[in-house]
Amino acid sequence: MKVLEDRIRKDGIVRAGNVLKVDSFLNHQLDADLFEEMAMEWKRLFAGKPINKILTIETSGIAIAVVVAREFNVPVVFAKKAKSINLDDDNYTTKIQSFTHNKVFDVIVSKKYLGPEDHVLIIDDFLANGCALMGLLDLVKDSGATVEGIGIAIEKGFQRGGALIREKGYQLESLAIIDAMSEDGTIVFREQNR
Amino acid sequence: MKVLEDRIRKDGIVRAGNVLKVDSFLNHQLDADLFEEMAMEWKRLFAGKPINKILTIETSGIAIAVVVAREFNVPVVFAKKAKSINLDDDNYTTKIQSFTHNKVFDVIVSKKYLGPEDHVLIIDDFLANGCALMGLLDLVKDSGATVEGIGIAIEKGFQRGGALIREKGYQLESLAIIDAMSEDGTIVFREQNR
Repeated sequence: MKVLEDRIRKDGIVRAGNVLKVDSFLNHQLDADLFEEMAMEWKRLFAGKPINKILTIETSGIAIAVVVAREFNVPVVFAKKAKSINLDDDNYTTKIQSFTHNKVFDVIVSKKYLGPEDHVLIIDDFLANGCALMGLLDLVKDSGATVEGIGIAIEKGFQRGGALIREKGYQLESLAIIDAMSEDGTIVFREQNR
Repeated sequence: MKVLEDRIRKDGIVRAGNVLKVDSFLNHQLDADLFEEMAMEWKRLFAGKPINKILTIETSGIAIAVVVAREFNVPVVFAKKAKSINLDDDNYTTKIQSFTHNKVFDVIVSKKYLGPEDHVLIIDDFLANGCALMGLLDLVKDSGATVEGIGIAIEKGFQRGGALIREKGYQLESLAIIDAMSEDGTIVFREQNR
């Protein structure tokens, strides 16, 4: 998606260790108008799918997901990083490894808000190694709901998450896929014809 | 705001210890259309104020704030609960006591995204004892920005936060103020004429 790629080129900062900082518009300061353009693109890409719920995970995914939800006219559910106190039978739970924080989180979704009747579009800001996304897919599977698609803002195409998810047959629509980047500011996007 | 009060009566659950569960529409599953109605109401209540930025704090405030940002056509900044690794000179920092988690959080906003040129509308989902809000006000003060107003979805009017903030002279607009509630489901809202 050209508008997102242009914004990443303009405001993204590449740091050592394949870190891409986009906190001026995506995950600390948020450009809600950009999110609306992204939401409209996903609406086009997932046209005809019987989506009745958006699923994301705290924290950065929430802002994008709620704008997408407005576009699709459906509710959002966000998976929560659990405190042990919340781990009870009323929740689906899974574990997600965070490389950023070098830690394993328990992640939960209440059984009240996800079930076999749901057709889910998963939304998140980043896809890299795919750990968070695999966790969300586990939660959806446990609930009996159907995954209709996955929308990611920025995919690090040089990490394995995207390939893993596509191999499983999911419709994964990443609006910008970075195949290479370096600290001198060079960012190479994958060409996507759609 | 009648639509929010009605929703709280319909879907809110009062638990022991003055806990109000609204996770079916406000902080786990999210009703984005309701948020839009709330955003329009704040737009009306803060009409004429030179607001150029929305400020909130993770996690539950983010979803509401981004819908408000769309309505005001301005960016959102959300204050982050910090990992020690992020505490450097590039951030405004404050400490916030969480009674829910019985813990003190370091909370940060990057100096890049808040400064003397900013006229801020603070948005959050809940106001009870006011600790989170006082922390956000500290951050804004440190930055030299101006607080144009504060929009809260649900205020627990029987706790001291709202009175404290109003005494300081801020325009605080809580869309629903609960003066009393009990586990049998009774919820008494404060009348607001506006």
